[in-house]
Amino acid sequence: VTAEEAAPLFGGIDLGATKILSLVVSRTGSLLAEDIRPSLGAEGRDAVIGRMVASLRECLATVGVDGRQLAAIGVSAPGPVDDAAGVTNPPNLPGWHDVPLASLIGSQLNARCTLENDANAAAFAEHRWGAGRGSRHMLFLTVSSGVGGGIIIDGAIYRGVSGAAGEMGHVTIHENGRRCPCGRRGCLEAYSSGLAIAKQGYRIGRRASGALHARRAAAEPLTAKAIYELATAGDETARRLIADAGRHLGTGLASLINIFDPELIVLGGSLTKMGDLYLGPAQATVQRECSAQARRDVRIVIGELGDRAPALGVATLALETATQTSTL
Amino acid sequence: VTAEEAAPLFGGIDLGATKILSLVVSRTGSLLAEDIRPSLGAEGRDAVIGRMVASLRECLATVGVDGRQLAAIGVSAPGPVDDAAGVTNPPNLPGWHDVPLASLIGSQLNARCTLENDANAAAFAEHRWGAGRGSRHMLFLTVSSGVGGGIIIDGAIYRGVSGAAGEMGHVTIHENGRRCPCGRRGCLEAYSSGLAIAKQGYRIGRRASGALHARRAAAEPLTAKAIYELATAGDETARRLIADAGRHLGTGLASLINIFDPELIVLGGSLTKMGDLYLGPAQATVQRECSAQARRDVRIVIGELGDRAPALGVATLALETATQTSTL
Repeated sequence: VTAEEAAPLFGGIDLGATKILSLVVSRTGSLLAEDIRPSLGAEGRDAVIGRMVASLRECLATVGVDGRQLAAIGVSAPGPVDDAAGVTNPPNLPGWHDVPLASLIGSQLNARCTLENDANAAAFAEHRWGAGRGSRHMLFLTVSSGVGGGIIIDGAIYRGVSGAAGEMGHVTIHENGRRCPCGRRGCLEAYSSGLAIAKQGYRIGRRASGALHARRAAAEPLTAKAIYELATAGDETARRLIADAGRHLGTGLASLINIFDPELIVLGGSLTKMGDLYLGPAQATVQRECSAQARRDVRIVIGELGDRAPALGVATLALETATQTSTL
Repeated sequence: VTAEEAAPLFGGIDLGATKILSLVVSRTGSLLAEDIRPSLGAEGRDAVIGRMVASLRECLATVGVDGRQLAAIGVSAPGPVDDAAGVTNPPNLPGWHDVPLASLIGSQLNARCTLENDANAAAFAEHRWGAGRGSRHMLFLTVSSGVGGGIIIDGAIYRGVSGAAGEMGHVTIHENGRRCPCGRRGCLEAYSSGLAIAKQGYRIGRRASGALHARRAAAEPLTAKAIYELATAGDETARRLIADAGRHLGTGLASLINIFDPELIVLGGSLTKMGDLYLGPAQATVQRECSAQARRDVRIVIGELGDRAPALGVATLALETATQTSTL
């Protein structure tokens, strides 16, 4: 057994609505193995947890060690994570309520397990290994079907009192406005997310003309991605839908910049792939709506770690927690 | 000279739009003297600064010592304070632009001088001596003619990159909504402040009936205070104006709670004196618009220190900075 083979390993498992992404890193943070498989949430909680464990075991098998060298793991999940109670309540997964995910996964893999919200974890990964390296105060927003957020203050995740902080998708930008999937009205998510774009596209598709109508009439899916494809093909209505969502995102970002005066905002999630069509109007709105001093201080950039960010973030959390503990 | 007489003194000067409030505290934070005088901003920058210095000297004379025992002072001012450049840009004071207030005051009083935004300073005072004692993460909102804010994280003022953080009055709650004094649209301040209430009252007073119309027709001032007096006398329109402003405040508070998951929000400023008429609708909105977990964590209370909070906050900052420096 060489020194490298005996060195501790750290695992990260990200539970998403559609897929599980696991990885194993060395104590220096090098990525050693990765596994991606579908979540299959409809099969129920225990089946999903079994697949999470199997996914990380697959990574360990790839590295070529058994579970005994796994020093610590982290698990990320969507929705609020309650630090104090050690439970998670992921939306979009039927039958999950106050699930003690850290202890369930930790006991099956025989390792200490840390639980974290997926956007917080992604923020942490971008801060340690990605676009946020070296920054002091950084906000992370992930914009895909929904809008999530993570806050880094003085280089650490800011969790609030019990882990519910960072719900930036549910800042009200338009009182009594559009209905949000969270049940309330006027949230940033209801205006700037992929679902918001799709919903507006479907509504506009009712009008008896244009490419959106043609797609709707043909019963083809009107997802944000489909609308983006129409936009890049030159459809003006599709372009306007995406620009509007970008402008709304800019309103939310400007409020956050006025609150936090951060040095950096890192944007992640699938909508960032829409580029200037979406992000141009967001940047223009930020320029207009921020205080001069905060605007001078902040840069807005795209994340570097993509879908891997949450799992890498929780693995890094597990690593740093273990390192700090052994140092003390 | 007794030990008490030889002990160092710490000064705080709060520059407000209408008045200057100075005070001197002992190294244990006991209030030893206080002076209040008008700002008289129209007399120009140097005259105002002279009055600030004279005000603190008056406090020192009351305590019965000369300037040599003044260990350190703090100065608070409205508007953004730029930490890095050491300058302040108070709105509402004509002719102030990038004024190096800390060095100007410090050199005249021959003491090291710390500059801080007034809402940040008030937040700090409430955390150390008032309603926020012992809390970890606390937000402070001051609601009077405008809306200001201060953020306490892990017991310290959160300033952002350069001191511009905490501009909670300029969170957008209604895109493309009412014009705010800051020049933008839809800010929390444009909906929930005393000026917002007065402006709505003046507008409604155009209608040819009711108490608001009578006041307007008689050219009596339609301030928030006047509208509150009408409300307590039973005028339904006045009551509704104040309740609406409270509801809007609740929208802003809910967004902040979803972002910060704080344990405490401390409210200061003259509008808190309106009691349930204003704060009841705010609380009800918070209950409806917050995530369940964050709502469970947070308490919303009224500040205990009133108008004295900013000056006490900067004096305490000066005191703690001096103490930390001498300990290191």
